[in-house]
Amino acid sequence: MVSEEKWMKLAISLARRGEGKVSPNPVVGAVLIKNGNLIGKGYHRYFGGPHAEIEAIKDAGEKVRGSTLFVTLEPCCHFGKTPPCTKAIIKAGIKKVVVATLDPNPLNNGRGVEILRKAGIDVKVGVCEKEARKINEFFFKFIREKIPYVILKAAASLDGKIATYKGESKWITGERSRKLGKKLRSKVDAILVGINTVIKDNPQLLPLKSRKRFFRVILDTKLRIPPGAKVLEEQLHYPTFIFTSSKANREKIRSLKEKNVKVRVLEDCEDRVNLKKVLRELGKEGIASLLVEGGGEVIASFIEENLADRIFLFLSPLLIGGRKAPTWIEGKGFESLKYVPRIKIEKIQKVDEDILIQGYFQKTNTIM
Amino acid sequence: MVSEEKWMKLAISLARRGEGKVSPNPVVGAVLIKNGNLIGKGYHRYFGGPHAEIEAIKDAGEKVRGSTLFVTLEPCCHFGKTPPCTKAIIKAGIKKVVVATLDPNPLNNGRGVEILRKAGIDVKVGVCEKEARKINEFFFKFIREKIPYVILKAAASLDGKIATYKGESKWITGERSRKLGKKLRSKVDAILVGINTVIKDNPQLLPLKSRKRFFRVILDTKLRIPPGAKVLEEQLHYPTFIFTSSKANREKIRSLKEKNVKVRVLEDCEDRVNLKKVLRELGKEGIASLLVEGGGEVIASFIEENLADRIFLFLSPLLIGGRKAPTWIEGKGFESLKYVPRIKIEKIQKVDEDILIQGYFQKTNTIM
Repeated sequence: MVSEEKWMKLAISLARRGEGKVSPNPVVGAVLIKNGNLIGKGYHRYFGGPHAEIEAIKDAGEKVRGSTLFVTLEPCCHFGKTPPCTKAIIKAGIKKVVVATLDPNPLNNGRGVEILRKAGIDVKVGVCEKEARKINEFFFKFIREKIPYVILKAAASLDGKIATYKGESKWITGERSRKLGKKLRSKVDAILVGINTVIKDNPQLLPLKSRKRFFRVILDTKLRIPPGAKVLEEQLHYPTFIFTSSKANREKIRSLKEKNVKVRVLEDCEDRVNLKKVLRELGKEGIASLLVEGGGEVIASFIEENLADRIFLFLSPLLIGGRKAPTWIEGKGFESLKYVPRIKIEKIQKVDEDILIQGYFQKTNTIM
Repeated sequence: MVSEEKWMKLAISLARRGEGKVSPNPVVGAVLIKNGNLIGKGYHRYFGGPHAEIEAIKDAGEKVRGSTLFVTLEPCCHFGKTPPCTKAIIKAGIKKVVVATLDPNPLNNGRGVEILRKAGIDVKVGVCEKEARKINEFFFKFIREKIPYVILKAAASLDGKIATYKGESKWITGERSRKLGKKLRSKVDAILVGINTVIKDNPQLLPLKSRKRFFRVILDTKLRIPPGAKVLEEQLHYPTFIFTSSKANREKIRSLKEKNVKVRVLEDCEDRVNLKKVLRELGKEGIASLLVEGGGEVIASFIEENLADRIFLFLSPLLIGGRKAPTWIEGKGFESLKYVPRIKIEKIQKVDEDILIQGYFQKTNTIM
């Protein structure tokens, strides 16, 4: 029992190496054990590349026959970018398969296990299941709901302000917090901000390290984006989606599209674009995870519509004050405390002088 | 060396037992050691009562001669409510005195040590000095500046809000946080709130346990206090100060004074009472520590005028949101980040689902 967990934890740590590289696929790790010894290991390295099981089998070579496979996710039984893993496992003569968690993908979801069992392989499911689901929390949501996993990131003073009443906002948190904040981009497929942030700060919104696949998303109901905005640069590598409404100037839409900017006009929306539609559109593009960086109005919309999954909140030890200074959650706000969303705090840590609070949104039927 | 610290720490823990009972005197603890054994101990138990040294000497009885005294604060050399301790120490035949820190009281401040040395006693100063100063941080400020040590207490959501935009505020933090918050009252001489809090919540502002000496303070520029406010009850045990301005109705002042309420009219103040004057008045009354409980405008005033020393901030994992929802620091706010006060965070802890952040104000020359 204990050693099963030990090997599965190794497989999980291998899986993690694929973070940010395989989306919208899940990260997967696998190890092969024979007579208590590790004889092969592998993980899903990049989107479209060989699956973890195949890598491990290749790594083990001839020793594979009669071994036990530990894999963090149920082996696939369908043709995707690669042939089914179940077939390869059977062919390799593996005698036992230990699976951390079933694949939520309806194409698989228990069928992989069934096929292996029918082939006479001893299959066990559920070892380190919680950890295995956690490393694929983006994927689990995306495959079920077809919309990205949404992470909110905010940086504020201890009294919740993101700028002084005069609008000064650079910098509230310290250097290390800002760097950690930027590092979050490496975990997700796309980053989203509101047009006010683009106009005020003119950010590039690029990943820290070069990436194969990374998108930028701007919410811009009236299409106010300045033609020279930095977020419109580098469209070939890092495409930008702009979600706008029928209020947008047609000529401006055309000129942006000529620059390869992915303008999406969402009809029948009023003062602001419909966020559920935005997320569905992003889901269709294979964006499985989204980092929402603000400002306060955009973050409020995600919270009020109950569309956020997780939060990273950096609080600096400053006391900005001011009844007119903006806070990191603006919007109309909730009328009554009984409708207010609650965070399940997962971790609180000091980041130099700042505090980083990480938590999950507790899903409720939110009514404004 | 190590054993000196050990005995001084025992004296400090004895001193602590006097917390909340001796103000505006300092808490003091003392132990007497002979041949490595504890032969007597004592602490300052209540305002006007015998000093720690006297208690320890009495406790040791005849064994006192030739012993070493460990005392958390320099022995006094002046007649106050009791005769000078230096005299008693010399008379008892104590051969060595170890002092944690000098007495900041200008009547003493090194003179006590000098007198002991002149009497041929070996005196050492500075063992566990930092801890000894910390247990008397209220006293150290009060004796030097003649105004109370000011502690701010606030309870807010993670986005800094103290109510929804509709004004609902009960309850944002959990039961244990609220209880801990009320326990802070036992450490201070007085509690202060603004008139808006009195009108909105009608609190009693009483200590959790009955106390010999505890004051309530209300800032009420226009003297809007409702005649039936709970904070006006129990004037004999827990007097209430109301600080108001020349805008106050004379008749109302008279009727409050008839009820033994301590109304103080501060002249030449404009829209709000002058906080420095309030603190000086409270200092004259022997109030050495003050807990400021809000609301957001009152807390902002203390912060903007750089009059706060310490903070206890309870953050609940709620996200209230709303650009019009009040935050725990309202006021005008600071214009530029370079003037914004910074908290030195001392401790972050979970209190059930909430977070308690404790910190000290870093003193600056604040300009609004």
